[in-house]
Formats: sequence, structure tokens, C-alpha cells
Amino acid sequence: MTTSDGKQAIGFIGLGIMGALMAGHILEAGHQLHLYNRTRAKADDLVAHGATWHDNPGRVAEHCDIVFTMLGYPPDVEAVFLGPDGLVARARPGTVLVDMTTSSPDLARRIAEAAAARDLGALDAPVSGGDVGARAGRLAIMAGGEQTTFEKVRPFFELMGETIAHLGPAGAGQHAKLANQIAIASTMMAVSESIAYAEAAGLDPRQVLDVIGTGAASSFLLVNLGPKMVARDYSAGFFVHHFVKDMEIALDEAARMGLDLPGLHLARKLYRRLTEAGHAEDGTQGIFRLFAETGHTQNRA
Amino acid sequence: MTTSDGKQAIGFIGLGIMGALMAGHILEAGHQLHLYNRTRAKADDLVAHGATWHDNPGRVAEHCDIVFTMLGYPPDVEAVFLGPDGLVARARPGTVLVDMTTSSPDLARRIAEAAAARDLGALDAPVSGGDVGARAGRLAIMAGGEQTTFEKVRPFFELMGETIAHLGPAGAGQHAKLANQIAIASTMMAVSESIAYAEAAGLDPRQVLDVIGTGAASSFLLVNLGPKMVARDYSAGFFVHHFVKDMEIALDEAARMGLDLPGLHLARKLYRRLTEAGHAEDGTQGIFRLFAETGHTQNRA
Repeated sequence: MTTSDGKQAIGFIGLGIMGALMAGHILEAGHQLHLYNRTRAKADDLVAHGATWHDNPGRVAEHCDIVFTMLGYPPDVEAVFLGPDGLVARARPGTVLVDMTTSSPDLARRIAEAAAARDLGALDAPVSGGDVGARAGRLAIMAGGEQTTFEKVRPFFELMGETIAHLGPAGAGQHAKLANQIAIASTMMAVSESIAYAEAAGLDPRQVLDVIGTGAASSFLLVNLGPKMVARDYSAGFFVHHFVKDMEIALDEAARMGLDLPGLHLARKLYRRLTEAGHAEDGTQGIFRLFAETGHTQNRA
Repeated sequence: MTTSDGKQAIGFIGLGIMGALMAGHILEAGHQLHLYNRTRAKADDLVAHGATWHDNPGRVAEHCDIVFTMLGYPPDVEAVFLGPDGLVARARPGTVLVDMTTSSPDLARRIAEAAAARDLGALDAPVSGGDVGARAGRLAIMAGGEQTTFEKVRPFFELMGETIAHLGPAGAGQHAKLANQIAIASTMMAVSESIAYAEAAGLDPRQVLDVIGTGAASSFLLVNLGPKMVARDYSAGFFVHHFVKDMEIALDEAARMGLDLPGLHLARKLYRRLTEAGHAEDGTQGIFRLFAETGHTQNRA
């Protein structure tokens, strides 16, 4: 269904904050956009701009050359790809299915096998960069799957992202994203403990962040989320409950490999404590609550 | 002893890699430089360029307007400042004593009190930036002590550093430096666990660092020490045994404040394990040994 001007029929399933922004770039580039989402209202804006609504994932697949998904949890991915009215069952041979959800590498491999058995292509291609990166079309995209399939999809990745990497076979994109989340997990402890210590010692934490943000202690999280911790601004860029999901997947995979990751274990424990205290809808900087609310800010150097 | 051209008599005690570079900038600016070091040979180069050697810290103090120290451990600081032939006992009234060692905030306060009782000024002013920053005169300097004393010393800090901050009363410089080390401790776990996971999953860790170094997982340590971990290059920029000392001080201070820092506790445990395995002279990226040597790099995605 590629038209004479190179425009293709593209599906997008999962229109949360990230998915809606990513799908929008595809529509803006002039492609036919076919949509499905659990909550239909989230498709209204894109439909008003020319996209086509379908009542289930399989219907989207029947109309498309490439279908992207941006879902919540691995069970959602499994249902959309491998369910009876799912993408693998309904897509025409030659269609490429691209899951951009952060999900399990093992599930990515199972999807790739099921897709291959029906002459479909499949990629796992999770992203980083959040809603800011999605809006600007500047996401980092980490892809796993066959090289030829990756090359077919690359022009669409370039609509959504800036750093686009093919890291290996099916599952490799998910593994790279998990490595990203593992780095974030302990760095978030680092930033929150550093600020908690500075406050407890009676220092001005903003001044401390300005100084230590120039050197070896600096990180994206220290510079960008440190000031939010100081301001007790726990509004969500990336939800605690999604981050806990990612850490659980990473710990499962690491256990499967026989790899012990004590920092990640500890971070997961702290974030679970945060969830149990009712803060699952916080942004990930909410981990600072565990340190800020212990009442030590009255100390002085 | 300030000369008519504004040049002053300056002492420098502790001529390790950092101290020698920092003292060199003072000499280059045309000030009289008075030296003492436990190992005399380390002063030879500066003496050949016009500095004056003395046989103990007290002798240095007797000749100087300002004395800087860059030592190893808090007991060294205590001996040099508070010992019988030490700086506080021998300095003339009005002299300013500046400890740039990373040391204990409590000791910094005791030195400031002892100094004040003899009409001396005192600052704690630890640094970050390592030998690269020391050589370039681009250290971050974190000072605690009285404002008027800080202003007297600021022109000399500007010879050694780029980011120069006065963070509060005596001890505040040490507290800020400890906040810096706390941020480094868990970030180092973050980077090493992320790379270990990527390798175990069969990914190219350099490619993973390139991708995740563009986003929320990025940090100075990931960008600068991550590639050394991948290359199994454990040569020292900053020694494991010095870092363990800093973490011990921070944990003692945190305990005194009633503040629990689980990430820092865990990092100290891992670095102690590294020390016990005979790697105290590694650079801090040596923590990666704990993950790299478990033999999981044969796994494939």
C-alpha cells in the first residue's frame, strides 16, 4: 500500500502521552495513519487531523505496511501482538511489527519468532527521552531485530528520534533500554541521597547542586531532577509505577543470566516502598520523599 | 609579609599529585612559596623553581600569610594543624590556614575553633576535579568558614579553581564535598551495573554507552569512566582507598544526623570488598571488577 509518492500505510497502537506524540510525527510526514487505542477518546485529535480509527489491533494490521505499538506493560504487549485478534494473527505477509514499549526481551524474542512463522518482520525498539523528546522528535531509539527489517523502518524512526541504534537481534533493543534503566536506578539514589545529606548538614541544596553539577558527581538526573527534589515537586515526567515495572523486568533478566545487581535490587526496594506509601503516580524523583520526610532539614553545619 | 606589588608569602603542605599542581599555580603567579611535605623529594621540582623548603609545618606557618594543606587522611590533618609543631601553634596572629584535604566536617570545626582562639583565620576548602582539573587550574572549590576570611583567600582559590563557592561556616566545605562523594558513590554502581548487564546480554557495551549517554541515564562517570570499565582499564585517577575514606566520613556524619543513606552503605560495602581483594590502588572505576569477573560475558541476546 505504498503510494507513488513513497507514502505508506502506517499503524499506531497505544496513544498515551508518548504514543500520541510519536504517531503525530508520522501523520505530519504525510503517511496514512491507522489507529487503535484502549480508550478511543485519545485518538480523537489524530482522527480529526486525518487518521483512521479501527476497533481492534488486528484491523489496524490488515490495513498497514508497518505497525508501531507503544503500550504499558508486557501483558498488554502480549495481548496486542499474540492475541486471537492481534497483530501477528491478522497482518498481511511482509508487514513489519515494531514494539516501542519498554518490555521484556524474552517476549520480544517470542514475538519475533511468531512473526517470522507468518512471514512478518518484527523489531523491538524501546525509546528514551520522555515526552519532551517525543514532542521534539528527538527520542533515542534502541532497536533489536534483523538488519533488513531495521532498514525498512529507519525512515520512520527518524521522524520520531535523533539517536537511532540497531543493537543486535530480537530482544537487543529491550536489553539496551534495560541497561539504560539500570543506570537510572542507582543514579536516582545517588542524587536523592546527596541532596538529603546537604540539607541535613544545613547547606543550601541549590548551591550544592550548582557546584557539584560541574564535576564528576554530575548527571542528567542531578541537573534536571535534583532541583525538583529540592522544590518537593514530584509531578510525573516518568511514572514510578512504570519504572518499577522496568526494574522488575531487568532483575528477572539479570537473574536468568546469573548476574547479581545489588544497586538495582536496592533501588527497586526503595521504589516499592514509595509505591506502598501511595506514590505510584509520582515522577521518579519522588524517591526523594523517602529522605526528605525524615525531618532532618533543621540541622545546621 | 605582603610585598609592595601585592605578592604574599604562601605556604603549601602536602605535595602529592594534586597538591604539587595546585602549589605550582601559586608559584607561577609570583608569590613566595614555602613548602613542607612528608617526603621531601616531592618538593624538589618546586624548590628548583624558587620555592623554599622547611623542615616541619610549624616553620612554614611562621613565614606565611596564608597556608594551604592538601593531605591524605583526617589524622594527617589533625597532626599538621593541631600537633605541637603544627600550624595553629606556630602561625603568627592574622595568618589564614586553609585545609583543602577531603576530611571530616567535625575536625574542620575543631580546627576553626582552635585557630580563632589564637587570632588565626581558618577555612575548610576541599576540591573536586582531580589531577586534570588541578593541572588546568579548573578545580571546583567548596569552602566553609567566615566570609571575610574567604574573601582574603579567594584570589588564591582563583589561581587553582574555576568554580569557587562559599557554602557556609566552618565544616560547610567538607559537607558539600561529602555530598559530592555521596552522589558519585551510587552513580558508580549505576554505571558498572548497567555495563555489566549490557555485556551479559551480549550487546556491544560501547554502542550501548553511546546511546544511553545521550539521555536520562547519562552522567560524567558513565561518559568518562564507562569506557574504561569496558576496556578493563583500572588505572587510578582517584584511588579506591581515598574514596573509601570519604564514604566512611560521610556515613559517620550521616549517622550523627540520624540520616540513613542505603545507597551509600551499599557502595561502601562493595568498595570494601574491592579493597579486601587487593585493589585499593585501583581507580574508582575498579568497582567494575566485582561485575566483570563473574564470567557472564558469554551470554548472547
